[in-house]
Amino acid sequence: MDPTKVKIPPMKDLNIDNITENTITINSQGDDPRLTYLMERLVTHLHNFARETRLSTKEWMTALNFLVKVGQITTDVRHEYILLSDILGLSLLVDAIDHPKLPGTTEGSVLGPFHTHEAEEISSGSGMSSDPQGEPCIVVCTVKDPAGNPIEGVKVDIWETDSTGHYDVQHADRTGPDGRCIMKSDKNGEFWFKAIVPVPYPIPHDGPVGQLLKLLKRHPWRPAHMHFMFEKEGWDHLITALYLRGDPYETSDAVFGVKNSLIVEFVPAPADIAAKYGVPEGTKYLKHDFVLVSDKETEKLRDDNALKAMQQLGRKVKLLNHLPVPDVD
Amino acid sequence: MDPTKVKIPPMKDLNIDNITENTITINSQGDDPRLTYLMERLVTHLHNFARETRLSTKEWMTALNFLVKVGQITTDVRHEYILLSDILGLSLLVDAIDHPKLPGTTEGSVLGPFHTHEAEEISSGSGMSSDPQGEPCIVVCTVKDPAGNPIEGVKVDIWETDSTGHYDVQHADRTGPDGRCIMKSDKNGEFWFKAIVPVPYPIPHDGPVGQLLKLLKRHPWRPAHMHFMFEKEGWDHLITALYLRGDPYETSDAVFGVKNSLIVEFVPAPADIAAKYGVPEGTKYLKHDFVLVSDKETEKLRDDNALKAMQQLGRKVKLLNHLPVPDVD
Repeated sequence: MDPTKVKIPPMKDLNIDNITENTITINSQGDDPRLTYLMERLVTHLHNFARETRLSTKEWMTALNFLVKVGQITTDVRHEYILLSDILGLSLLVDAIDHPKLPGTTEGSVLGPFHTHEAEEISSGSGMSSDPQGEPCIVVCTVKDPAGNPIEGVKVDIWETDSTGHYDVQHADRTGPDGRCIMKSDKNGEFWFKAIVPVPYPIPHDGPVGQLLKLLKRHPWRPAHMHFMFEKEGWDHLITALYLRGDPYETSDAVFGVKNSLIVEFVPAPADIAAKYGVPEGTKYLKHDFVLVSDKETEKLRDDNALKAMQQLGRKVKLLNHLPVPDVD
Repeated sequence: MDPTKVKIPPMKDLNIDNITENTITINSQGDDPRLTYLMERLVTHLHNFARETRLSTKEWMTALNFLVKVGQITTDVRHEYILLSDILGLSLLVDAIDHPKLPGTTEGSVLGPFHTHEAEEISSGSGMSSDPQGEPCIVVCTVKDPAGNPIEGVKVDIWETDSTGHYDVQHADRTGPDGRCIMKSDKNGEFWFKAIVPVPYPIPHDGPVGQLLKLLKRHPWRPAHMHFMFEKEGWDHLITALYLRGDPYETSDAVFGVKNSLIVEFVPAPADIAAKYGVPEGTKYLKHDFVLVSDKETEKLRDDNALKAMQQLGRKVKLLNHLPVPDVD
């Protein structure tokens, strides 16, 4: 803290035109080149935003108070900043950058704010929803590599709302996890479970993010979907969801998650399927095959995309731990 | 909320390249053109930031959790988001945009997070600090227009730390406002008060903003200063501060507030001054003349600056309520 021990280039008389370079300079004394780069781009965009909009003091104060509210409504089971990122399209973008997909492999979708770490592991064929009002269904899946080989022992996290469109954590009187489970794929890459047919629901809009949506004349609805997350060492972490075809919000998802390749159909189980899985004929049935990409392939694709994008942007960077930093050599 | 009643252009299969235009489109349905413009620029910069840095999911999550903490440590008397804006140079920038100054008039400086609305009005000659450890001083001021005419009845808000470098609100056991007051300029534009000589102090660095400063190897110190805020109908609201010459942090203020024209010197009061103000000879004495700009002149200057800047940036905008909005005609 002794000012004689920090080497800061002298600054004074900062104004609209010189504040950015000065802030970047003072932020560039650390020994983490990635942080230096992130801060340089952050300050540049933040300042350019203010300069391009001629942001007023009143607007600035309104924005800061909004950000306070987003933080203060956040709890262990409601992450309003993830929600804000979701409705601004940032979550979709970051996932697309970080988890590029090869053709023919399962695309990613938004995580959303309702994943928890308390789901219980169930075995194939078990149920993951206790909601008697929901329409029963069975979901039969495989998880394979791009060549079609099954992947055994993948940890699969699955979560969905109840029939009222609420996740378990949204009920104040809940007694434990519901509408969520963890499964492991077997040696054929298979896992299947009983659940309820997903319904469309509005994202929580009783907080600051809901107020923003209202100001923007946007609805808060998400089309009916079921979340899936896949994890196994050596394979790229996959966060995705399956969406129901024909949902009224299919092309206006409040958080931009829908992809054509992730749209599915529940069909009435024919007699042979019903018998195989021990459910009444006509029970809603979904079959889906997921395809994972290896860590290595994803890493290479991510690096290639990053370098290509940086080149197109004319930025002089190199990759350090697979992330761009300024190339000062 | 009925999807048939909202006209949203269909969206699906959003990716790195098309997410920005789609987000902007869905955000542009409102009837407030200023909000539409702010959101368009916000989303553009936010997305470009992620694309230019190839922001990873891990970094994104770290950033969102940081923003939650900034909101959650904020209270009525500690606005951590103002602090964050201050150390990123945004506060200085917004003030410079919103309150442009004509040559020869008093420049602005950062508000900081410690202004409150509970200071008591005192009459000229009264004291505003009860700290017996502080070095006593008298501050003798005038407030005038650019032509040198005194401005009567200006509400002046003044605040400073105690001798330990803390504002009253930073003491858990405080009983009321201290080190802050409100005064009114008299018919000669004069006001004077007793205070203590300001000391340098670190901005609160026990929270997330302090952690960020540490990561960036920046110190949290502000040079010794006294805050002033001027308010009178017809005159541009002036938020400023006076800084002590020779302070060790004069050229490395953690929040970028120092300007040459705002650097002052406390001198020992000579015999005549001491007699005039009824203090012992040699008491530290500061004389300063503030110059306000009229609302109208500021508005014109702000408009001119905005249009000039927009033209230089090549942005097709017009001013609505003195703020840029897209010019769609």
